[in-house]
Amino acid sequence: MSKFLLDKYKDLVPYTPGEQPKDQQYIKLNTNESPFSPCEAVMKAIENEVPTLKLYSDPECKKLRCKLAEIYNVNENEIMIGSGSDELLNYVIMAFAKELVFPDITYGFYKVFADVNKVPYTTIPLEEDFTIDVAKYVAPGKMIVIANPNAPTGIALSLEKVEQIIKNNPTSIVMIDEAYVDFGGESAVPLVKKYSNLVVTQTFSKSRFMAGARLGFVIANEELIKDLNTLRYSISPYNVNSMTLAAGIATLENEDYTKSKCLEIIKNREYLSKSLKNIGFDVIPSSTNFIFAKTDKIEGEKLYLTLKEKGILVRHFKSERIKDYVRITIGLKENMDALVKAIKEII
Amino acid sequence: MSKFLLDKYKDLVPYTPGEQPKDQQYIKLNTNESPFSPCEAVMKAIENEVPTLKLYSDPECKKLRCKLAEIYNVNENEIMIGSGSDELLNYVIMAFAKELVFPDITYGFYKVFADVNKVPYTTIPLEEDFTIDVAKYVAPGKMIVIANPNAPTGIALSLEKVEQIIKNNPTSIVMIDEAYVDFGGESAVPLVKKYSNLVVTQTFSKSRFMAGARLGFVIANEELIKDLNTLRYSISPYNVNSMTLAAGIATLENEDYTKSKCLEIIKNREYLSKSLKNIGFDVIPSSTNFIFAKTDKIEGEKLYLTLKEKGILVRHFKSERIKDYVRITIGLKENMDALVKAIKEII
Repeated sequence: MSKFLLDKYKDLVPYTPGEQPKDQQYIKLNTNESPFSPCEAVMKAIENEVPTLKLYSDPECKKLRCKLAEIYNVNENEIMIGSGSDELLNYVIMAFAKELVFPDITYGFYKVFADVNKVPYTTIPLEEDFTIDVAKYVAPGKMIVIANPNAPTGIALSLEKVEQIIKNNPTSIVMIDEAYVDFGGESAVPLVKKYSNLVVTQTFSKSRFMAGARLGFVIANEELIKDLNTLRYSISPYNVNSMTLAAGIATLENEDYTKSKCLEIIKNREYLSKSLKNIGFDVIPSSTNFIFAKTDKIEGEKLYLTLKEKGILVRHFKSERIKDYVRITIGLKENMDALVKAIKEII
Repeated sequence: MSKFLLDKYKDLVPYTPGEQPKDQQYIKLNTNESPFSPCEAVMKAIENEVPTLKLYSDPECKKLRCKLAEIYNVNENEIMIGSGSDELLNYVIMAFAKELVFPDITYGFYKVFADVNKVPYTTIPLEEDFTIDVAKYVAPGKMIVIANPNAPTGIALSLEKVEQIIKNNPTSIVMIDEAYVDFGGESAVPLVKKYSNLVVTQTFSKSRFMAGARLGFVIANEELIKDLNTLRYSISPYNVNSMTLAAGIATLENEDYTKSKCLEIIKNREYLSKSLKNIGFDVIPSSTNFIFAKTDKIEGEKLYLTLKEKGILVRHFKSERIKDYVRITIGLKENMDALVKAIKEII
């Protein structure tokens, strides 16, 4: 650390993204990316943008917002676009959070966003079975953040229960991070018109094949979106590049492709769950593109390390309550077969 | 503004980017973009990335940093990549600034970065002729920000004078924003090895035809870069998408193309300066891809508005010292001819 870094950041511990090793080819089941590439139309849309890369991208991201508005049945002014949802989660916390509340086991980045924004946070333990007891989420004046479905557990909360949290906290912003919602969750977007304290974030990184293009969006009532734009225009007004904007529109124009690939991932997920249960794993029922599983035959960390030696990457978290588990991204059926075969050799 | 926005942002006035009107086709000479598209190789590089958009981009931006390191003769660990230089300017101010000092007439975003980070700032008036008197820049413990060449004046500061500022402020970070350096300025990058308080930012938006792809970089000593990465990994670790990274590398592999286009812009700049002087304009000698000019025949704002009616966009700033001027981006020779013709009709 340099002597110039401001004191307030001296203890900041950044988020550690899932490893992206370059030493060899892996079957990559560790960062919840899609095993499918974007559809043909995306390539064309991107090509069309190259000659005009010399011009700034549209800071309003108008066309993409209109297309999203149409699909999600909201107003275009209820949407802000970001370069991935991490950037957006940070803007929401920066704009509205005096204090944060989130589950003890969830996306590891929330506590980092809290730290970088100098916002204190409290965690609420998930139940024994990793579900959320909504009655525990009453936090006047504090922002509540819920990943739904949750990561790394994969468990979804019903829309009814999400609404209960929003209703119980009229003086708090409730942010629902729906990164994985397209694999079986229920989106809170329809509640945006009803509750002015609701913020929903989604991403193109998981169900829409575009992790490398960096695209996410926030849906919330117009006043909240205006506030978020005030911050965005004070930091990085042209935050999304024009190729990614065009790719996003082309992807949304091909929702059938997206939906069919989501169904395929759900099918592979059920296939992997069954295969792992057959060899003695506890598998938490997942509504996402990953599963969270453990076995008493091998420790989570050891399984992760041994699989890595065999050329398969999964993710392991060291925190106490979940250290027995590994998180496995759902890939192609052949990836799932290779994984199960490797695990059988190990245990 | 919503009732949820934190008090500290209630008075925040965001930056206003140059207008990007969609109502008709304009000759766009208002946001200092390049009139040239990226070279062929960039298209190929981008196409190659589309199939792997499903995977996250490299958060370390390793290949691009290595290529930049080679070109700028620094170590790859002395570089951080950003999604345009605005994002990077903000990270530098966020990380290191207790207070900011910059000229009264310069890039309008600096004061917004100060405001959004709740950092007080002082401006130091440029001399009568809009040059910088380096003796006035002694600010112990405060961060000094200099755009070199400066915008919107276009005036460059010699490397010797830049070094004097850095030397005179050993306890301050001196940030040199070199967005326009490739059009005739002298870069401070060679001083990075000598001074641990120097931060240099550059962008691919001006000389490298990629405003719409969003790409910028910071060069500074390794410790400062580590600090900046701590913040970046706490907000948006995958801040640059993989198409833009690939496009950046391809552009750097074709420096001859870049250099020849810079020379063409410089030629067109001298041509426009001469043409405007011929019809009675005061033109400030420019080391950038724009010129700053005025005439006593028409007010700056009126010239801007009348040109807009004629389908030509230039930029006008309302602040007192420069309200007589317009800032004109250098375009193709035919754009320059069209502009001069239109101005002749107006005055």
